[in-house]
Amino acid sequence: MEKNGALKDIVILDLTRVLAGPYCTMLLADMGANVIKIEIPGRGDDTRSYAPFQNGESMYFANFNRDKKGITLNLKDPKGKEIFLELAKKADVVVENYRTGVMDRLGLGYEILREVNPKLIYAAVSGFGSYGPYSDRPGYDIISQAMGGLMSITGQPGDPPTRAGNAMGDVLGGLNLTIGILAALHARGLTGKGQRVDISLVDSVVSSLEAAPQRYFQSGNVPQRIGNRYAPVAPYDAYEAKDGYFVIGCGNQKLYELLCNKILERPELITDERFTTLPLRVKNNAALKEIIEKWSANYTIDEAVEKILAVGVPAAQIFDIQRITEDPHIVDVREMFVPLKHPVIGDMRVSGCPIKLMDTKICIDTPAPTLGQDNEEIFGDVLGIPAEKLQELKTQGII
Amino acid sequence: MEKNGALKDIVILDLTRVLAGPYCTMLLADMGANVIKIEIPGRGDDTRSYAPFQNGESMYFANFNRDKKGITLNLKDPKGKEIFLELAKKADVVVENYRTGVMDRLGLGYEILREVNPKLIYAAVSGFGSYGPYSDRPGYDIISQAMGGLMSITGQPGDPPTRAGNAMGDVLGGLNLTIGILAALHARGLTGKGQRVDISLVDSVVSSLEAAPQRYFQSGNVPQRIGNRYAPVAPYDAYEAKDGYFVIGCGNQKLYELLCNKILERPELITDERFTTLPLRVKNNAALKEIIEKWSANYTIDEAVEKILAVGVPAAQIFDIQRITEDPHIVDVREMFVPLKHPVIGDMRVSGCPIKLMDTKICIDTPAPTLGQDNEEIFGDVLGIPAEKLQELKTQGII
Repeated sequence: MEKNGALKDIVILDLTRVLAGPYCTMLLADMGANVIKIEIPGRGDDTRSYAPFQNGESMYFANFNRDKKGITLNLKDPKGKEIFLELAKKADVVVENYRTGVMDRLGLGYEILREVNPKLIYAAVSGFGSYGPYSDRPGYDIISQAMGGLMSITGQPGDPPTRAGNAMGDVLGGLNLTIGILAALHARGLTGKGQRVDISLVDSVVSSLEAAPQRYFQSGNVPQRIGNRYAPVAPYDAYEAKDGYFVIGCGNQKLYELLCNKILERPELITDERFTTLPLRVKNNAALKEIIEKWSANYTIDEAVEKILAVGVPAAQIFDIQRITEDPHIVDVREMFVPLKHPVIGDMRVSGCPIKLMDTKICIDTPAPTLGQDNEEIFGDVLGIPAEKLQELKTQGII
Repeated sequence: MEKNGALKDIVILDLTRVLAGPYCTMLLADMGANVIKIEIPGRGDDTRSYAPFQNGESMYFANFNRDKKGITLNLKDPKGKEIFLELAKKADVVVENYRTGVMDRLGLGYEILREVNPKLIYAAVSGFGSYGPYSDRPGYDIISQAMGGLMSITGQPGDPPTRAGNAMGDVLGGLNLTIGILAALHARGLTGKGQRVDISLVDSVVSSLEAAPQRYFQSGNVPQRIGNRYAPVAPYDAYEAKDGYFVIGCGNQKLYELLCNKILERPELITDERFTTLPLRVKNNAALKEIIEKWSANYTIDEAVEKILAVGVPAAQIFDIQRITEDPHIVDVREMFVPLKHPVIGDMRVSGCPIKLMDTKICIDTPAPTLGQDNEEIFGDVLGIPAEKLQELKTQGII
């Protein structure tokens, strides 16, 4: 496979497992980077045992590891370490999401790697980052959603704290890791030197809270779970139609006035003293919601959304997972589900790349590697290890 | 201000408003890019009217626009357009999050800008992206959480679809936009040319769903709201202690065995036929949860978490917004809240940057601009427009 994307000159040694790290290297690979995923011989990434399975193969693993090459290497073995250092000499980036300290204990920490390759970027993502009092704690997505404050503000009023229904901490961490790697590559162009990038899932979740901390700082009131509302803006919520819920988002005065004039056909609501400013509309949201739902009760979801969109006010259906996989905009035009043929799974569709580079196009064309699939190419062709030696390394469990 | 970060050589013209775009340019500015925020004369970014306020000034705006310079420019005026094109000649990146088509109608679309500066990167984020059947629809965060599928899988069982409690679609879009810009800058180093980057909030949310679409593809069952569980893994949930909820995440067999042996002190659960594999533990999660809560009912949240962490199993308290702003790891060491003195607000704390570059350090030291604060510097010093002409432009409402 000849890569031709934005990052086609970049070689990435990918030690990551599960989700945050692999999500990052997936994006890098989609953008053309040469990602070499390194797994534990005979076992591989934990997510090779994550459901769903097809023909005994994990579709979870297959989704996030497309477009990567796959090799196996035992980093606990002295010969394995030696081979890893040879690879590090030829790489631009090493990415890992082990618990903090694991790479140092293996004798493969940044201080060692920079000696063999001063231009190397060493990027790590972990639950709490590589420094600070919690840095040696284990972290998974749910830990970061809990300690990063997200669960405390997600959910209907009266509900227990609620996790975003996806592994959002891992996704945010993976995105920040990608940004850190690309920024460090840019800085390397200025300084000639690599550096360490350190991402924490908890930091990533805290940053995603956007203005919630400001609301606390200003008022001293701790933000609570407020369902589908957004604290600084109204009307901006889920509303009930004949057959279920839909959403409206009026982010400024003009949109609110359009809603009053063209949809509710009640222009007096614009000058109603309960609703004249954003903060007043937020304060009197319940009354405003009642007015809107009195209108929407007459229509189906699709009718209400169509009418509101027709006058230029933001509104939407609430799509379920089936519907997003069938929607013509999302699937056919934005290519957010891409067909691939996997050697074991067979025909499958993987999630597309959300980063649309209009000239150096995203390319998703290679299924995730089976365990050790590219050992010969990487160890043989790239490092020049002869075939009989490779067989020996395999027998010894080193690759 | 002399910038010294990873992106110190990059000049960004920032036309963005509200959150997705400003979150992106905030990260770029934190990493040292020279961000020039362009606002509508006399009015400014919509979020200047978003709560919370201190001394009449929006802390929402101040949080996301620190480290940026601020100028005003009327892009509907022919002279304003001319000035913008002069700035575009000197910039590396133009970022905008108008509705699709607005920049073209202003006569400032990519085709025009690339003519004056072929190396320019033109980066846009919008609700649905710049192409596709929904591309002219207005988009806000809640629209993307609804149509991107996230609301359909977030919430307790039986709840209505639930929004992540922050503007997660905007944050994800802002992160993908940042990645796109940095990747396009890298590609420019290879090709010598700029390009267009096109990000959609909906695409960004769809990508964040991680393996949920795979579960649907495999089973045909549409993923539902399952509270705090994670579909492929168990035990991985919120559990009740004496004084409320905490979380545990056992992402692999080893962690599960540690939990059984060292915490529950029931090694027979490891070989219990209901729990021998991840998929079986997911299937029998309710029974497993009952067993764990029988144990945790004896302890406070803090006691339970401390005991579980002590044996190396991931667990955490669920922090509220107050607690994250006081936590020594998050605040003192990871610097996720940074003190700044704002000319109107006074002393405030803004959210820190989650991307830790260990050599080219993040620097957050300049408060958000008041409206048009840097007009003289940018129009006068950078473009060489004389003072009397600036006064005239101001009187005419062009700046």
